[in-house]
Amino acid sequence: MGCEFCDFTDKDVEDLLFETKHWKIFLSKEQAYLGRSVVVLNRHCSHLSLLTKVEWEELQKIIKKIEANYKKYLGATHFNWTCLMNDAYKNENPEPHVHLHVRPRYAFPPKIEDNEYPDPNFGHHYLSKSTDMLPDSDREKIVYRLREAFKREVENV
Amino acid sequence: MGCEFCDFTDKDVEDLLFETKHWKIFLSKEQAYLGRSVVVLNRHCSHLSLLTKVEWEELQKIIKKIEANYKKYLGATHFNWTCLMNDAYKNENPEPHVHLHVRPRYAFPPKIEDNEYPDPNFGHHYLSKSTDMLPDSDREKIVYRLREAFKREVENV
Repeated sequence: MGCEFCDFTDKDVEDLLFETKHWKIFLSKEQAYLGRSVVVLNRHCSHLSLLTKVEWEELQKIIKKIEANYKKYLGATHFNWTCLMNDAYKNENPEPHVHLHVRPRYAFPPKIEDNEYPDPNFGHHYLSKSTDMLPDSDREKIVYRLREAFKREVENV
Repeated sequence: MGCEFCDFTDKDVEDLLFETKHWKIFLSKEQAYLGRSVVVLNRHCSHLSLLTKVEWEELQKIIKKIEANYKKYLGATHFNWTCLMNDAYKNENPEPHVHLHVRPRYAFPPKIEDNEYPDPNFGHHYLSKSTDMLPDSDREKIVYRLREAFKREVENV
């Protein structure tokens, strides 16, 4: 087993939302909480405590961008951030690679055109075993919407 | 309802492990994962994205201290970090206050003298509904062990 993040294939990369010098941000496959994303460090690094000062500073800017854009363009109320890396430790030779998950949480059901995607349990711990996906057409719309939002922001810097 | 973190009572403060200018670190009541702690911002602030640069830099130092000390003094293998704040949104007028939970995870059962506290599900998502506590005597030992560890580190700075 290699590192799942170092061994990304082209297929995974199609859901890239934006990238910075040290991080990439993808829309997760699982979308029980609309806009769920993963923030992946570009280099292989096993622990959150081993990030460099520069990587940590860039992460703060990414968190600011994500919370602002997901509030503005998806209608998120607040956010659940996690850095867990449990899966890596299922292997005999664990190769954890720092990544964070963000699940936007919604007091009011977000919409993609006429389709509503209500938060299944607002005010409570996220459902960790959910496997909900979006229909392809709505997934494309949200990827487009978020890519454009991040692009606009970069242009404004 | 006020803010649960701004309204801390003396009783809660007895499990303070260490503090910095902008943060306080407490041993959580719930201890399914030995050493589970909560890192609380001193000022009232609703979103992770609203931390100041200085607060964010200090948080990095705290994460480094916690991961190093909990590896050295508890035998932790890795860490689950979360910043969720769901509970605040159970109230009609939510008053979220930035705090992070850290659950040390253990490939090998940690010990407090002769008592073992094995990780209930290493390699998997933490059990969010656990209510496991420590016997008072072991809790006192771990609080002492961690306070001393952080104190030594501060003295070495």
